[in-house]
Amino acid sequence: MEHSIKNSKTTDLTRRLLETYRRHGAINKIGEKNLPSETSVVELLEELLTLMYPGYHGRPVERHEDPAELVERRLGRLEGLVADVITRTLNFCMHGEGACLRACAQPQQETVAPGEPTEAIDDLALRMTREYLSGLPEIRDLLALDIQAAFEGDPAATSTEEVILCYPGVRAISVYRLAHPLFCLGVPLIPRIMSEWAHRRTGVDIHPGARIGTHFFIDHGTGVVIGETTRIGDHVKIYQGVTLGALSFARNPDGSLVKGGLRHPQIGSRVTIYANATILGGRTRIGDGAVIGGGAWITRSVQAGATVLPPPR
Amino acid sequence: MEHSIKNSKTTDLTRRLLETYRRHGAINKIGEKNLPSETSVVELLEELLTLMYPGYHGRPVERHEDPAELVERRLGRLEGLVADVITRTLNFCMHGEGACLRACAQPQQETVAPGEPTEAIDDLALRMTREYLSGLPEIRDLLALDIQAAFEGDPAATSTEEVILCYPGVRAISVYRLAHPLFCLGVPLIPRIMSEWAHRRTGVDIHPGARIGTHFFIDHGTGVVIGETTRIGDHVKIYQGVTLGALSFARNPDGSLVKGGLRHPQIGSRVTIYANATILGGRTRIGDGAVIGGGAWITRSVQAGATVLPPPR
Amino acid sequence: MEHSIKNSKTTDLTRRLLETYRRHGAINKIGEKNLPSETSVVELLEELLTLMYPGYHGRPVERHEDPAELVERRLGRLEGLVADVITRTLNFCMHGEGACLRACAQPQQETVAPGEPTEAIDDLALRMTREYLSGLPEIRDLLALDIQAAFEGDPAATSTEEVILCYPGVRAISVYRLAHPLFCLGVPLIPRIMSEWAHRRTGVDIHPGARIGTHFFIDHGTGVVIGETTRIGDHVKIYQGVTLGALSFARNPDGSLVKGGLRHPQIGSRVTIYANATILGGRTRIGDGAVIGGGAWITRSVQAGATVLPPPR
Repeated sequence: MEHSIKNSKTTDLTRRLLETYRRHGAINKIGEKNLPSETSVVELLEELLTLMYPGYHGRPVERHEDPAELVERRLGRLEGLVADVITRTLNFCMHGEGACLRACAQPQQETVAPGEPTEAIDDLALRMTREYLSGLPEIRDLLALDIQAAFEGDPAATSTEEVILCYPGVRAISVYRLAHPLFCLGVPLIPRIMSEWAHRRTGVDIHPGARIGTHFFIDHGTGVVIGETTRIGDHVKIYQGVTLGALSFARNPDGSLVKGGLRHPQIGSRVTIYANATILGGRTRIGDGAVIGGGAWITRSVQAGATVLPPPR
Repeated sequence: MEHSIKNSKTTDLTRRLLETYRRHGAINKIGEKNLPSETSVVELLEELLTLMYPGYHGRPVERHEDPAELVERRLGRLEGLVADVITRTLNFCMHGEGACLRACAQPQQETVAPGEPTEAIDDLALRMTREYLSGLPEIRDLLALDIQAAFEGDPAATSTEEVILCYPGVRAISVYRLAHPLFCLGVPLIPRIMSEWAHRRTGVDIHPGARIGTHFFIDHGTGVVIGETTRIGDHVKIYQGVTLGALSFARNPDGSLVKGGLRHPQIGSRVTIYANATILGGRTRIGDGAVIGGGAWITRSVQAGATVLPPPR
Repeated sequence: MEHSIKNSKTTDLTRRLLETYRRHGAINKIGEKNLPSETSVVELLEELLTLMYPGYHGRPVERHEDPAELVERRLGRLEGLVADVITRTLNFCMHGEGACLRACAQPQQETVAPGEPTEAIDDLALRMTREYLSGLPEIRDLLALDIQAAFEGDPAATSTEEVILCYPGVRAISVYRLAHPLFCLGVPLIPRIMSEWAHRRTGVDIHPGARIGTHFFIDHGTGVVIGETTRIGDHVKIYQGVTLGALSFARNPDGSLVKGGLRHPQIGSRVTIYANATILGGRTRIGDGAVIGGGAWITRSVQAGATVLPPPR
């Protein structure tokens, strides 16, 4: 008796849940095999980090191993992973509602119209993959400068090893350096899944669309937010809790937000921004060499060389 | 020789550690089989998220699968998991010192006196489980509105898929929506283990006791804290680092803190609170449509429609 | 044809990557078997937490188990893990560039010169291991006080169990209490890997070099930073987003940062620091019983008993 009552209740609940699946179709994906999975993107990211920091990330590299053979093998594996993830994502966006293709609306990218034959997508994915991989040596050059900046910028840093193993800011910047070129190529979703993986592990949220110069150092890092259209010069140092964000949002005639446009600040070179400062707005420029005190709320430009401190209490 | 010296030292150390087990019994649990494990709560939470966002969470759902059969099977599995976790937790609280039952001191819940026979606990756990599960369709309705708010509220959002896959604020709110009804039913500990799991993964700390309206959006999210007795209206948007907290604490005559009472602010509808603002106190009300600037420190009420900005520097 | 083109391209890319391995040798470790792995340090930390909080961390402890036997077995296992990790790390630092030995420049530690024979390192590692383990009972005494402070300090806390299972601040302080004595013994890198593991899981970044009194409570915790030379008295309570950091950095004649020296503030006893306050500088002292309001920016000393609030808006 109890059993049948339970069953009828469950069935009623099942029916009500299925109705919500129909009512809110946008928040379920049934029968959609191409949605990029976080697992596959994280696997790819781990391979990339292993190639960037051999012996630090991934398994130890033995003394008797041939580095050339190792790199060749890893690159081969990477090409497969990158091409697969890009192909699935492009297919997903083509055959879905196409909404996520808005991410591609960057000047530098090739576009594919929804409904394009699968062959064209495969070709595009392969071209994107090769272009992406060919930039990896330059990314390593950039990472070397970031690590130098971290070691030189923090008196508590005792060695390069400590900086690579223990600095969440270094990890977040590393993932940004690896995600940004994918974003520029017009690959949808993948760079954001990468940056969110770094955000979860480090508390540092760098949108892959931001443009960041060399020798960038984020200390401690928890709570840092760097928005999509932020530009940052060279030798910039920021501390935990700093926001480089949008101030307010332009709206279309129908009340919806205008997507696109410069919404985030532009930071010059050799700028230091202390903990928990909030700098907002696409017209806000922080001049070269400026110092922004902790907890500051900045919505207007700051001249080069200026120091902004809170009012005395 | 070395061996025996080591043994005698170890034995002495063992003895000294065992003494601390006796001295500080509250921080060990030996022979306590009912302490709810984080693993079981996380397993439950993953099942709930899979039911809420099929195809996004958990394994992909194939095109040929029958959604009705899938939901029915998942609900059956969930009923077992929820009932087991609740039963263990109630047993733990009954047979322990009962201290954690204070969490149950909510108007809407049934109570069981310590020492109650196990059958009564099993029955109560089953009733709680069914009441909880029967509310899941309404939770999905709420989640659909939150996701709409996130997509409409962030110009950088390119698709619903990106919002569900990449927005930590959306994940934190999802876990809150799933934990809050358990809290209201008077289930001890479990909703807090859920909210802390979300806190660890997202940096967003929402106490399951808070009451939050529809279309709630938290952008970036790291460092957000929403206290136990906070109330939030509809269409509210908050940014990373915002605290809705307690100001100071009333004390009992013996100096211990009064537990219970309204300690956290009440936020109206259509309020926007920018990064790192701190709003404290149970008598602090933020009126409808108000805008609170970044880094603000608010301990008094703010009128509807007002904009609070920091003093110029 | 396609195949050979791909191969020649890959080979060129391999060559360019290998060049960056030579160019930036400091950010790869090929053939270095002694670099301490995060995995081994995390395994060690889990064992330590299990010994500190039996039945809470690790597997449940059955009623029929003999606690003495259990502790004895766990201590034996721990001794092996600690000695192995310390030995590898000392070897790594000896045979590498030695840079990471700067971490050891504390008054209280023994030193080993680079190039020292391996036997001496093994002996030193064993002595450090035993001294470390012999302090574990005192660490448990400290943890009991911290948990008491958390339970008494937060009106939302319903039980000791909730505090141990759900409070990230408690977890971060626990890891600090376990890492600090290793730091004082002069063990390089390991304490920092521990503190960064806690940082990633809790958002709380406590440098293992800080000196912190009894009954320390961090509520919520995300974004808290406590720098290397910070000193904190007893019964101190701090909230999420609080920074106890360095103000500016002395430089050597060659422009490099001076490493060492008191760079972080000194906090008295019974001080409360609200959310997102930033207190900077080695000469900044916060007197006993002071209260620092949320979002404050403090670079000068505050008298005992004073309350620092932001200017009215």
